[in-house]
Order: sequence, then structure tokens, then C-alpha cells
Amino acid sequence: MNARVAAPSTGGRSVGVVTPADLAFDTPLALKGGAVMPAYALRYETYGTLNAARSNAVLVCHALNASHHVAGVYADDPKNVGWWDNLIGPGRAVDTDRFFVIGVNNLGSCFGSTGPASIDPATGRPWGAAFPFVTVEDWVDTQARLATALGIERFAAVIGGSLGGMQALQWTLSYPDRVGHALIAAATPKLSAQNIAFNEVARRAITTDPDFHGGNYYEHGVVPGRGLRIARMLGHITYLSDDAMAEKFGRDLRADTFGRGLDVEFEIESYLRYQADKFAAYFDANTYLRITRALDWFDPAHAFDGDLSAALARARARFLVVSFTSDWRFSPARSREIVKALLDNRRDVSYAEVDAPHGHDAFLMDDARYHGVVRAWMDNIRP
Amino acid sequence: MNARVAAPSTGGRSVGVVTPADLAFDTPLALKGGAVMPAYALRYETYGTLNAARSNAVLVCHALNASHHVAGVYADDPKNVGWWDNLIGPGRAVDTDRFFVIGVNNLGSCFGSTGPASIDPATGRPWGAAFPFVTVEDWVDTQARLATALGIERFAAVIGGSLGGMQALQWTLSYPDRVGHALIAAATPKLSAQNIAFNEVARRAITTDPDFHGGNYYEHGVVPGRGLRIARMLGHITYLSDDAMAEKFGRDLRADTFGRGLDVEFEIESYLRYQADKFAAYFDANTYLRITRALDWFDPAHAFDGDLSAALARARARFLVVSFTSDWRFSPARSREIVKALLDNRRDVSYAEVDAPHGHDAFLMDDARYHGVVRAWMDNIRP
Repeated sequence: MNARVAAPSTGGRSVGVVTPADLAFDTPLALKGGAVMPAYALRYETYGTLNAARSNAVLVCHALNASHHVAGVYADDPKNVGWWDNLIGPGRAVDTDRFFVIGVNNLGSCFGSTGPASIDPATGRPWGAAFPFVTVEDWVDTQARLATALGIERFAAVIGGSLGGMQALQWTLSYPDRVGHALIAAATPKLSAQNIAFNEVARRAITTDPDFHGGNYYEHGVVPGRGLRIARMLGHITYLSDDAMAEKFGRDLRADTFGRGLDVEFEIESYLRYQADKFAAYFDANTYLRITRALDWFDPAHAFDGDLSAALARARARFLVVSFTSDWRFSPARSREIVKALLDNRRDVSYAEVDAPHGHDAFLMDDARYHGVVRAWMDNIRP
Repeated sequence: MNARVAAPSTGGRSVGVVTPADLAFDTPLALKGGAVMPAYALRYETYGTLNAARSNAVLVCHALNASHHVAGVYADDPKNVGWWDNLIGPGRAVDTDRFFVIGVNNLGSCFGSTGPASIDPATGRPWGAAFPFVTVEDWVDTQARLATALGIERFAAVIGGSLGGMQALQWTLSYPDRVGHALIAAATPKLSAQNIAFNEVARRAITTDPDFHGGNYYEHGVVPGRGLRIARMLGHITYLSDDAMAEKFGRDLRADTFGRGLDVEFEIESYLRYQADKFAAYFDANTYLRITRALDWFDPAHAFDGDLSAALARARARFLVVSFTSDWRFSPARSREIVKALLDNRRDVSYAEVDAPHGHDAFLMDDARYHGVVRAWMDNIRP
């Protein structure tokens, strides 16, 4: 979540001050991993107005460390700008004058929805290690329940980038009749061995931190901050392209530091340490473990002997798939796998490979060509 | 260091049983970082016979976690095969029937040469945190002293891959009259911001391990094993191509493990944990910190306002530069920077971009085209 306040290059306004809401669910939810969530709450935000036909709702799914706070600011925290504020608002690419946009914090996250840091009513203590491992399918199920509770039978569109895009794809498979359009940006049909390997290093950094206490660190009044910092530094490397990193930080030495050894000597080190400290102060380690595992497990083709075309046959939505040339985490080749599988099924799919220098994070950036493509595609949706 | 015993595809024999030797140096060495090493020892191995003219010596420089044990085996440890055994031996690409080959463990390493785990004579305790940070230039200086001690005024060739290749390049700059040929494989003229970032994550994992004790862990009877494991896992990811990882491990689930959460579920996780445990059992953390810093600092163009051509103007050697298509750590583009700078100076340089799937580690692999190029180039050296 990068705060940015400038109007995006494609125009429009911010939704302004927003207020999150909570919704509690009492019907037990059977998770794909075998566990059952007896009850849980989801935190969400909405922007714009649901029309009389209840046909103009757009669901925004979030990526690893983001939340329901997709657009606008909070009255008491005006610098906390929603993570996709440059894309969503009145007159923006996702136009809240036309659409009723919903952002929801995923189950297991740490921004208000029930997660490992929440109190387990059965014990009166934080869930901790006992909180189940959730999957992309589980998130989509909880989002579908939220939609039903809000009176939305069918989404005009489900949109997301990275892990959010994977949820948008899963929506078209889990609930093909409840989603009209799906925007899948900077995503992949499944993680590569290298992607899983990076996740595993981050998890091992967290779980081998002496302050992890097997996941029940809350009771000890500590957090596995060392591990979280390592995880975040590593994440940042994979989110940025080598070129973007070079342009932002080069390999500039900080003044007069050569030869200090372990102290910060290069700008890139200073940046990573700063990001790591910031992250460790607000993100829950158990959430990090669960979200990276959900990423590892996502593989709709797995039940079809690896045949992605067979897996996507049941999708009915119209698709926009977007990739970014410098994204080496989920490269354009991975997006093209999705496009090919959809075309094999003669689905309606638009594909944009955006020449952007920012790496994986490009899906969060203000980029006129990227936003122009999204705007044109959204404009064609007639709710 | 991967043990391998099969004869390489390009033929030849192993040098067989080898024995390391040690040489002590009493003349203080001024290091580039400002410190002075009062005395130190280097461990080395030799293969083949130095000719009467003392003109057939080849120095092999090692990369991050390797050593002086370049070829052959030890009588009491026949499975411990030298890390470049497939390239070096009688009838091999670097033919020990023609050349007198020297492998040397770098100052600051942990395989016999003086390093942070050695006893500091001034205190009677391990150097630990007090051991100076060394540079590629420093290593080349110590290697030059070793050569002098062995009666070698000029090397027929200095060869190495990765960080070893960077030392070979530095040799041509620090001692242009003492090196006839230089083989630079899978190297770079300087690390990118992304390369430095990966090193920094590894270092932070080590230095924030509670068992690090500011670098003086020897006295506490512990090693920062958690940090070393993270560093090694991360290293492995950057040494292998995404494709090689996919081919070796795919994203295969281990049988019946889906949904276990934090336990090993994918083959790649099992591989990384195994490699990490093995590494943490033998490698010294302080050495890891110093060698990665030497990598960060290497930048011969820095003193020439970033002009690599100007920096390489003083080189006199004949060069072979080799890169590997799937190496994303030091990509072929980085090798081409070296080639271009040498050509700008009208140096004699051959360049081979080998189509190899293994990633950065390809320079260690038995690859007929790669070894064929090295053989042809070495055959042209007339000592």
C-alpha cells in the first residue's frame, strides 16, 4: 500500500473520505484444507452507489499485504490513501459514478477481518497457530457470502492484481454465473518453483525467528520482527524490476561510507531496511505465512492433470488480462498462459502487455497506457 | 561445491588424490578498506608440474562458498571432489599435463586460510567481528604474494567463474604484467542494485540472528545457523534458473501433504532446507558477510567515473569471457559490458554466450560446448 495523493494521469477524482464496515458470519465455513471456520467477520469498504437493479457492483480483491482500503482516505488519517486510489474514483478508470465498488479484507488477514491475531471465541485467546490455512478458493467463498449479504447476486466485475487477480480468476471458476467480467492483472495461473522458493525463504525466516513461538507469539508479548523484516526485504526485491531498482537507487554509495562493513553503505540497503521496519510494525506474521501458502497452493489446473484449458472451461465471464514487461515475479509469459487457455475455450478475452519499467508493482502504479486499457474495458461494461 | 565423479563429456581424467598446503606471510598487508593484516596464512593446492621456465602456471580463483580444493579428491575423503574437477585434470579443458594449476583459499574464508574464525595472535581468541573486511583487490594482492613465494612471476592464465571471474579481471588490472590470459566466466563488472539487495537480505538474516552476538559467536559456542540457512536458501534461488528449478523440482507436491501448512509440501522446499542445513554446518557466517561485501564493492570503473573502458585500459592480457543464457544473477548483458570495454581498448578478447539451462551455476557444470570453448582457448596458450 503506497500512499499517493496526486491525481492519476488518466484524470478523475478521489472518492474522498471513506469508512470501513464489518459484517459477521455465523454459518460455519468448510475450508478447502479440511478445517471449519465456525464464525468470522469481514471488514470491507464501499464506494459509489448500488443501483436499483443491483447490477453495478465491482469487487476488488487484494494482494498479499493490502486490504479492504482500496480507495479514498480516512477522516482521522488523511495520509492513509487506498492502495488502488489512482484507478478507482469518480471519473477514474473504475468509475464510482457508474459502479458500486467493494473492497474486502480477506479472511486470515490482519486489517480487521478475522485472522490469526483475532480472539478465538472457543478459547478467549488469539487464534495464533490454530488459525487454519486458507486458500484462494476459500477467500472467494467468503467474498460470495459477503456479496449475498449485501444483496448482490452477480458482480458486474471482479478485479485484482497479483494475488488479487488470481482471486478474480477463481471467481470465474467457483461462481461462473455470479461474475460478468474479470480483470486479472500481473497474475499467474500457478506459482513457479522459483516463486514457491522465495515464499519458503520468507516463511523460514519467520518461523525460525526465536520470537515466533510456534505461531503463538501474541501470548508472549512479542512479534517475530526479524523474520518479518527479512520476508519484506525479499518481497520488495521480487516486486521491483532490476532496472527500476537501479533507477531508484542505483548502486550509489551513501556519502563517505565505503569500507564500513556491515553498516548501510548503499542506498538500496537503506531503502530495504526502512521498508522492512515499517512492515514489521504493522503486519502479522501468521497472516504472512498463510497468504504465501495460499499463493503456493493456487493451481486451478491441478485437478485437471495440469490442463489449464480444461480447468478454465467452466468460466463464463469476459476477461481483461494485463501483464507488465518488466514483471519478473509473474512475467507476461504467465499471463499469456491464462489468455491461451481462455482462447482455447473461445472465451471473450482482451490482453494487454504493458511496456512498464516498474516490475511486478506496476499494477499499482499510475500508468496512462495501463489505466487507459482498464478504462476502455470498464467503459464497455453495461451493468 | 557439488561433488561429482563422472568423467566430463569433454573427456580427460581426474588429477586423483591431492594434498593441500599452507603458506604463512609475515609482511603486513595494507587492505583497501584501511585495515592492515599483520600476518596471515593461505591454504592452496597445486596440480601438474611447474615447468623449468616457470611459465605454465594457472591460477584458479574461487567464488563465494568454494575453496582451494579445485580438482581431485583427498585420500581420507574420496567423496570430496574439487569444485572444478570436471574442467581441470590430465587431458581436460585445463590440461594439467601442460599447466601447473594452483587453487587458493581466499583471505577471510573458512577453509584453511586465515579468516574470522582463526585465532588472532594479538588476543589469543578468534578474530570474529574484528576481522577486517577484504576486497577483490586485496585477494588479488595476496594471490600475487603467494605466486611470488612459489617462484611464479607471471601466470600463463588466471581463471574463475562468478566472483572468481571478477578476481581474474582484477588481476589484469592490478598486475597487468603478471598475467598472460584471463578467463572470466559468469561474472559482472559490478553488482546491480538487485544483486546488492539479495546480499543485504542474506547479511541481515545473519546479523539479526540472536546467535550472531555481533560477530563474536565463537566465544559463545554457537553459530548463527538460522541466518546462514536463510542466506543459503536465498543464494540457491539466485544460482539456479527458474527453468532449471522447474525441471529439477517442478512444483511437485510431496505425496499426500496438501494442506499441512508450514510443513514441507513441495519438493523445492525440501531441497532448499536440505541445502541450507548442509551449508550452515560447514560455512562460517563472518566469512559470508565479508565475501558478499567484497562482491558489493567490486567496481573497477568506480575510480573512472563509471567509465569501464577507461578502467580496463591498463589490462594487457588476452581474454575469454563466457556467459550463460539462463544466468539471471549475472546475465550475459553484464559479460557483454566487459567485452565491450575490452574491445574499446582493442584488447584480444573471445566471447562465448553459452545456451545453457542451469542458470548462474552453469559455470560449474559439465557442458560440452562450454568446456569445448575453454579447451580451445587454453590450447592456444603457449607457455
